[in-house]
Amino acid sequence: MYKIAIAGAGAMGGRIGVSIKDAGYDVTLIDNWEEHVKRINTKGMEIKTENDTFFVNLPAVLTKDISTKFDLIIILTKAMASEEMLQSLHEAGCIHNDTAILSMMNGLGHEERLSQIVPLSQIYLAVTMWTAGLRGPGQLLLEGEGSIYLQRADGAMDAHTNTILQILNDSGLNAQISTNVFEAIWSKATLNSVLNPLCTILNKTIYEFGNDAYSNEIVMAIIEEIVAVAKAKGIHLDNNALLKKVELSYPKDAQGLHYPSMHQDYTNGRLTEIDYLNGQISTYGKEFDVPTPINTMLTHLIHQLESKL
Amino acid sequence: MYKIAIAGAGAMGGRIGVSIKDAGYDVTLIDNWEEHVKRINTKGMEIKTENDTFFVNLPAVLTKDISTKFDLIIILTKAMASEEMLQSLHEAGCIHNDTAILSMMNGLGHEERLSQIVPLSQIYLAVTMWTAGLRGPGQLLLEGEGSIYLQRADGAMDAHTNTILQILNDSGLNAQISTNVFEAIWSKATLNSVLNPLCTILNKTIYEFGNDAYSNEIVMAIIEEIVAVAKAKGIHLDNNALLKKVELSYPKDAQGLHYPSMHQDYTNGRLTEIDYLNGQISTYGKEFDVPTPINTMLTHLIHQLESKL
Repeated sequence: MYKIAIAGAGAMGGRIGVSIKDAGYDVTLIDNWEEHVKRINTKGMEIKTENDTFFVNLPAVLTKDISTKFDLIIILTKAMASEEMLQSLHEAGCIHNDTAILSMMNGLGHEERLSQIVPLSQIYLAVTMWTAGLRGPGQLLLEGEGSIYLQRADGAMDAHTNTILQILNDSGLNAQISTNVFEAIWSKATLNSVLNPLCTILNKTIYEFGNDAYSNEIVMAIIEEIVAVAKAKGIHLDNNALLKKVELSYPKDAQGLHYPSMHQDYTNGRLTEIDYLNGQISTYGKEFDVPTPINTMLTHLIHQLESKL
Repeated sequence: MYKIAIAGAGAMGGRIGVSIKDAGYDVTLIDNWEEHVKRINTKGMEIKTENDTFFVNLPAVLTKDISTKFDLIIILTKAMASEEMLQSLHEAGCIHNDTAILSMMNGLGHEERLSQIVPLSQIYLAVTMWTAGLRGPGQLLLEGEGSIYLQRADGAMDAHTNTILQILNDSGLNAQISTNVFEAIWSKATLNSVLNPLCTILNKTIYEFGNDAYSNEIVMAIIEEIVAVAKAKGIHLDNNALLKKVELSYPKDAQGLHYPSMHQDYTNGRLTEIDYLNGQISTYGKEFDVPTPINTMLTHLIHQLESKL
């Protein structure tokens, strides 16, 4: 039987795991949060949707206790926890020569970091438009629809890509194989690199930020740097399309009433993913000699805020 | 009798006015704050120092009621109120062909704005290291020592400069004529352009900001842009000297325990002077084709914060 693991079973990992389980696959959740793992194993995962509440039974295991060999491991930890997670799974013998490692995390550069541990040819990248919420240990909030684009990180097509596609679509996750997943990843990362640090620094909702005379000048300055860095890495992005994408998030009936995830992390006293967004742009900028003063400044400002925690 | 006005009689205007009055000169305070003006006229200005409290009697007049002709008008309004103040005094006939207009305000570009109303040859610039606090209407808090550098805005030497020097030194204000007042003004404005927006955005004291792993990279990025803009305007500043000046403000026994004035303005619901600091750098940068992405971004961020007020 094809064995699947979700490494990092927070809100999104929980949603993906439950969907795959519901389709009849063998799936195991892996996480470091003891209370969460315990409640999933004793009560099942509690799912609240727009109009229903129910439980799904699936196994959850603490990272330190895992030793099963998996065929597919979907990484959905926080960005800064992914290397340690993959290293643990590697040392525990969970990864064989044909295990597919599918990163579905936000942010940039995951393939570069994860391929220090597992060969790049075993790494797959996905970008997802699904969202999810965690109401407490073992308690998911699932609303709305989404989709997934995926591709092997080195761009090659292989049988495993089709297998993953099949699993995700059997699970109702609306997946497609992409011929340029990096464009999709960078496009989503641009949105996050704009809204996450700015709404955090300014303590504003997306609507409040967007509904200000000075928003577009700030946004475009960030986008221009990202597009220039992407170009140096051979990824084509379009300034105006990205600006449009950001603007589409402003209305109250889009994402406007929300604070981005970084704001939630910061106000809850957690470290942010800034190093995988603007910070990664800044790092690439240095590597390719592309100036990124704005993204570097935003990275420093968020680190300055984190140092208050 | 040589007639002197202090236009804008807040903390610093009050301190300068009281000092000049104490030296026996004819000095009038001009301000828009009715309660402040009324209390000064009925009780005198109440002065609290490190070890004493006393009153100084001097006249205060509301801007709308002033009509006296003055020989020297020292401008110490908030930066954004200075043009309206000078225009009012001009229309009220307070300025004759030989009236000296001495700007002692923080920030950049005052000579350019004020010379739209009064000829540049009548405008003098000063930078002061005195500080002062306002405890309430008609109540000053005076601590510490300071100094003043001054020069005619067009660089010419004249008799009036010496008269002003004499008045300030008779008043114990420790003044000197400068041969390059712009260097002193830009140097002080650099310190303010670093600490004011950053401590406001980050909600940190000067010590908290300085005592962070990411402070110097941020500071240097701001300084480099200011030095490049200054150079385009023919003003020589030194990166490392400016960094040192900023660093000297960090310790708790220097200014470290304080929030800069912009933080105080913002938290008290007042508009800030950002347009006369980083915003003016940004404006000059556009004018001289010198890139100033960081100063422009900081200006926008502060305006975004102000729009929450």
